[in-house]
Amino acid sequence: MTFQRIAIIGLGLLGGSVGLAVREYLPDAVTTGYDANPATRSRASERGLVQTVCNTAAEAAQTADLVIFCVPVGAMGAAAAEIAGSVQPGAIISDVGSSKESVLKALADALPDNVIIPAHPVAGTENSGPDAGFASLFRNRWCIITPPEGTDPAQVEALSGFWQALGANVEVMTPSHHDLVLAVTSHLPHLIAYTIVGTASDLEDVTQSEVIKYSAGGFRDFTRIAASDPTMWRDVFLTNKDAVLEMLQRFTEDLTALQRAIRVGDGEQLFDHFTRTRAVRRSIIEQGQDDARPDFGRSDHTGS
Amino acid sequence: MTFQRIAIIGLGLLGGSVGLAVREYLPDAVTTGYDANPATRSRASERGLVQTVCNTAAEAAQTADLVIFCVPVGAMGAAAAEIAGSVQPGAIISDVGSSKESVLKALADALPDNVIIPAHPVAGTENSGPDAGFASLFRNRWCIITPPEGTDPAQVEALSGFWQALGANVEVMTPSHHDLVLAVTSHLPHLIAYTIVGTASDLEDVTQSEVIKYSAGGFRDFTRIAASDPTMWRDVFLTNKDAVLEMLQRFTEDLTALQRAIRVGDGEQLFDHFTRTRAVRRSIIEQGQDDARPDFGRSDHTGS
Repeated sequence: MTFQRIAIIGLGLLGGSVGLAVREYLPDAVTTGYDANPATRSRASERGLVQTVCNTAAEAAQTADLVIFCVPVGAMGAAAAEIAGSVQPGAIISDVGSSKESVLKALADALPDNVIIPAHPVAGTENSGPDAGFASLFRNRWCIITPPEGTDPAQVEALSGFWQALGANVEVMTPSHHDLVLAVTSHLPHLIAYTIVGTASDLEDVTQSEVIKYSAGGFRDFTRIAASDPTMWRDVFLTNKDAVLEMLQRFTEDLTALQRAIRVGDGEQLFDHFTRTRAVRRSIIEQGQDDARPDFGRSDHTGS
Repeated sequence: MTFQRIAIIGLGLLGGSVGLAVREYLPDAVTTGYDANPATRSRASERGLVQTVCNTAAEAAQTADLVIFCVPVGAMGAAAAEIAGSVQPGAIISDVGSSKESVLKALADALPDNVIIPAHPVAGTENSGPDAGFASLFRNRWCIITPPEGTDPAQVEALSGFWQALGANVEVMTPSHHDLVLAVTSHLPHLIAYTIVGTASDLEDVTQSEVIKYSAGGFRDFTRIAASDPTMWRDVFLTNKDAVLEMLQRFTEDLTALQRAIRVGDGEQLFDHFTRTRAVRRSIIEQGQDDARPDFGRSDHTGS
């Protein structure tokens, strides 16, 4: 079972990248798409993110055998409601959202007659909008598929095959486990980055200009993440609240312990902690999940 | 006034990069160097980090008109004591350390007859050791010079000229203001990165393997910083304690406010905060302090 007609609802970074990746790696598939923003639809047509950009979500979805929602997780329910009554009952409904329990519920409530198999490709950049996508975004990245209990394995297999065709590695887990894992590998890092960039902007005795000039000491790394789409991230935190708060509690405890070590001058504790964290980087590089070049291969050291 | 004979004490990432940059951009200068680790001295010779690798710090410093200490900030005093009695009284003593009040005191205590002008090039990578350095490390980066009150302006000018020759932009400020600025642009980001990587490593319900696999969601960015040299960073936190604890307090307050917004579901506050932080990234890129390409220009999206 493979998908022949793919509808993409939402044509920003993720939706656009899915469309471009299908064009590149599944050239026989027919793609339709829709975005609520007319300017995005227009730009999506120009870039050819999908073969046909439609004027309604219902029109984009009506002949599809796979519908992928690529909208902020808080907008999934409303977007899905727009295709109710038009989408074929046999079509599989999926998405690319960063939280999964809430999305599964929103999609299932809006489309009770369809099979819902949520998915989350763990990939992205700090850019957003219809110009941000590119076909290779998912290559060598993981895509997590979170079918509800009782889903037909053949349908899960079909969706896995779709993402594998786009270059991703696929893992299957429950929505709730996904939400816990992503709370630590993605949501908490974003929250912390957003926080520190805000803290640095609000100081009285250090100017904004100084913060920017000397950002190469570490701060600039956080600003990339803190430049991510505000709507998307607002929705992530609101829809994965429990897991994020749980991870945040653990982070705060650990930060308090290091703060105390600094206050009392416990160099040994600091050294031990900093030595331990070094190993994690090595594993990430060994498993191909980051650029092995120093400084992510940034170009500024070459003087360009 | 320009420097003719430059001694570099400590031949890791920073010391090695200074040596290579002098070779590249100030080819007429004579360089000597020393490192307490015999293996580092040997590797420094092979790579030609300095023209002459000496067996003692005293030997490396004895004919120098500029001595630059490139050792962890906690080791500055002991390293400086090793050249007391050998270094010429007219030689200027400088360094590249990340905290400046404590380093100024340590160097001045050890070498009371010399002029001390501390400096801090805000540049580096997550790598360390004699293989990590490269000549272009300082290009388009800022170097902060922190002369004690009453320093001869001509000597400050000479040190500024040295760093400018290596490609850096130079700013002069007091040691205490430096320590405050760097607490927010560098020390706090490192502490937070070290913390979250530790937190993620200690979870029971999310495996280490899952943390690594799904790190592209944001976590991997933090692991780069948290792979930095443990000795260097232990010393930074112990020597810039007050400013770091002050910034940490502000960060914790801000994090608590966002935590509360998540708990009560205040989407507007989250959205406003996330929108505000986006602008900081733009300024950093406009001022040439980071790579403008998405995702720092990481190579993994190209499938390489």
